[in-house]
Amino acid sequence: MLRLLLGLALLGLAEALPFEQRAFWDFSLDDGPALPADQEEASGIFPTSGVPDFEDVVPTYRGLCPFGCHCHLHVVQCSDLGLSMVPKQIAPDTKLLDLQNNQIRELHQDDFKGLHHLYALVLVNNRISQVHPKAFSPLHHLQKLYISRNLLSEIPPALPPTLQELRIHDNRIRKVPRGIFRGLTSMNCIEMGGNPLQNSGFEPGAFDGLKLNYLRISEAKLTGIPKDLPATLNELHLDHNQIQAIELEDLIRYGKLARLGLGHNAIRMIENGSLASLPLLRELHLDHNRLSHVPPGLPGLRLLQVVYLHANNITQVGVNDFCPMGFGVKRAYYNGISLFGNPVPYWEVQPATFRCVTDRLALQFGNYKK
Amino acid sequence: MLRLLLGLALLGLAEALPFEQRAFWDFSLDDGPALPADQEEASGIFPTSGVPDFEDVVPTYRGLCPFGCHCHLHVVQCSDLGLSMVPKQIAPDTKLLDLQNNQIRELHQDDFKGLHHLYALVLVNNRISQVHPKAFSPLHHLQKLYISRNLLSEIPPALPPTLQELRIHDNRIRKVPRGIFRGLTSMNCIEMGGNPLQNSGFEPGAFDGLKLNYLRISEAKLTGIPKDLPATLNELHLDHNQIQAIELEDLIRYGKLARLGLGHNAIRMIENGSLASLPLLRELHLDHNRLSHVPPGLPGLRLLQVVYLHANNITQVGVNDFCPMGFGVKRAYYNGISLFGNPVPYWEVQPATFRCVTDRLALQFGNYKK
Repeated sequence: MLRLLLGLALLGLAEALPFEQRAFWDFSLDDGPALPADQEEASGIFPTSGVPDFEDVVPTYRGLCPFGCHCHLHVVQCSDLGLSMVPKQIAPDTKLLDLQNNQIRELHQDDFKGLHHLYALVLVNNRISQVHPKAFSPLHHLQKLYISRNLLSEIPPALPPTLQELRIHDNRIRKVPRGIFRGLTSMNCIEMGGNPLQNSGFEPGAFDGLKLNYLRISEAKLTGIPKDLPATLNELHLDHNQIQAIELEDLIRYGKLARLGLGHNAIRMIENGSLASLPLLRELHLDHNRLSHVPPGLPGLRLLQVVYLHANNITQVGVNDFCPMGFGVKRAYYNGISLFGNPVPYWEVQPATFRCVTDRLALQFGNYKK
Repeated sequence: MLRLLLGLALLGLAEALPFEQRAFWDFSLDDGPALPADQEEASGIFPTSGVPDFEDVVPTYRGLCPFGCHCHLHVVQCSDLGLSMVPKQIAPDTKLLDLQNNQIRELHQDDFKGLHHLYALVLVNNRISQVHPKAFSPLHHLQKLYISRNLLSEIPPALPPTLQELRIHDNRIRKVPRGIFRGLTSMNCIEMGGNPLQNSGFEPGAFDGLKLNYLRISEAKLTGIPKDLPATLNELHLDHNQIQAIELEDLIRYGKLARLGLGHNAIRMIENGSLASLPLLRELHLDHNRLSHVPPGLPGLRLLQVVYLHANNITQVGVNDFCPMGFGVKRAYYNGISLFGNPVPYWEVQPATFRCVTDRLALQFGNYKK
């Protein structure tokens, strides 16, 4: 609605002033009776004599709220408004600012000025391609930044050190430079899938300083497991990439993983011993790959409960592929194994293969039909 | 990832059981050591003798979290996962469930079963066209339902009575039936723009029982101001419709409005006296319409501070169009008037026209250029 500011000229009422867009933006300022404290115009053309004192008749209305937004209990909800810029008039005590589904193209230096209490900033589904290096610097308490579905070609620099969660899915990021996350000691979750990221896009030290629990780089262009991700990860999701193999050294660093998502890749080979690096693994998704046999090492993963292997090229299942051989070996029961969508003749699989599975319903073992 | 459930057959390990998809969904259940309390299979083919008691070796891991989601502090964050269904394994103490940007097509009866503590449910940008009448009934504490950008052709029935905010922008809703919001006594905000709603789509009594503060029906197919909206409204946004005129009775009901958005319509005529129904109006947007003169009645709106009239067809501005005539009339100062984009020769407008405007920067009065 404010896009038609081009070619404006101020009516020279008292004197010709240079055009100040700031004033135009500010003019819906709505924080009290309209009489300015500083009556600059008192001696100008506006007859201020005779203007009543409004304190007694105008109800005080202190809440700032951009026109069209809904502001309630420190939440400023401005989604779906067709906004082309971050609106002004955002109350400084705002905790959540929702600007999703607009047409914002750029974040300027002062767009979030004064929003020291902002806890969550939602910018999903705009057209943001430019972020000023200082745009986020006023956000001293920002914990969640959701900026997925934009046109960013790089991760914005100088993210607030208080940030805990960054969602930057579905942008145009090709590169994660060294040190980009430096100082983000509170961050525990990054979702950066849906970007055209190749393995070479991660500079050495890209994740230095991060103690992430959760990382998702799905729907990217990875051909292998990145080697330099935080060793603190409990969950790593790399599904829908082009990973072809898992080699011995690929997983050594990630010994804290409880969940590993590798579905929808092109994995043909998992090197013997590589899974042994993951003693805490509880859930492993390898569905929709090109495996020709059950990956080696599953019986040794003592906490593993869920394995997805459906939609691979597995032709046979050995009696010791899942469960330890001896009775003395302690192991959690599986409560989920999927094997359907593989060319394995199920009548050839010995029932004892699944001796450490909770119950028969925990097993999905479809017939192979071509 | 779970879409390939078609054509599955259970491996008949002990006996042929009918396929139970429920069990498959449940198999990532992750709420403790894997040994089932009820060892139904103890006498079956699974050798449970010799299976160790895991209480002592397996760390307890009580948090339910759907695979791929990030769960932290009662927030279950499952956006951008390509999900085709609401995932199971959502912890019953979840307060915010974010499922935006997925491929969910339908909400089933039990999709939100047990989520008694859910406060906010975000379903924005899915493909939801079907909602089971009881889908939301477990949500005893739901306050915010964000279901914009889906394929709904009607407002879901039986919304939780605790609901305070409904965002259902950009769906395919053509009709708001009588009583659809009955019992929603806490609701204060509805955003239902971006739907192909005509005036005839609102049944008489459609909004019965609602005490809304905020309503937005922008980007719809309205040709007039709906007559039967809640009289409690403080904000009404009807921009980007096809409204052609405002008649005397159109606004009588909405005497509590502080903000009225009517930009981007086709308004040629505002009947004399109609604005007098809005004594509390502070902000009026009438930009991008077809007005040929300043609407009558502005001087009488004693709290009005912002009027957008840019991009109309206004050819002249009278000296008393904005400000009261006498000095004795109490009135708030304007702090925003926009008049640019009108074919009015500004040199013909008397400076005194703006005697009740805060300062010159509060006025945007562009030259008309063709």
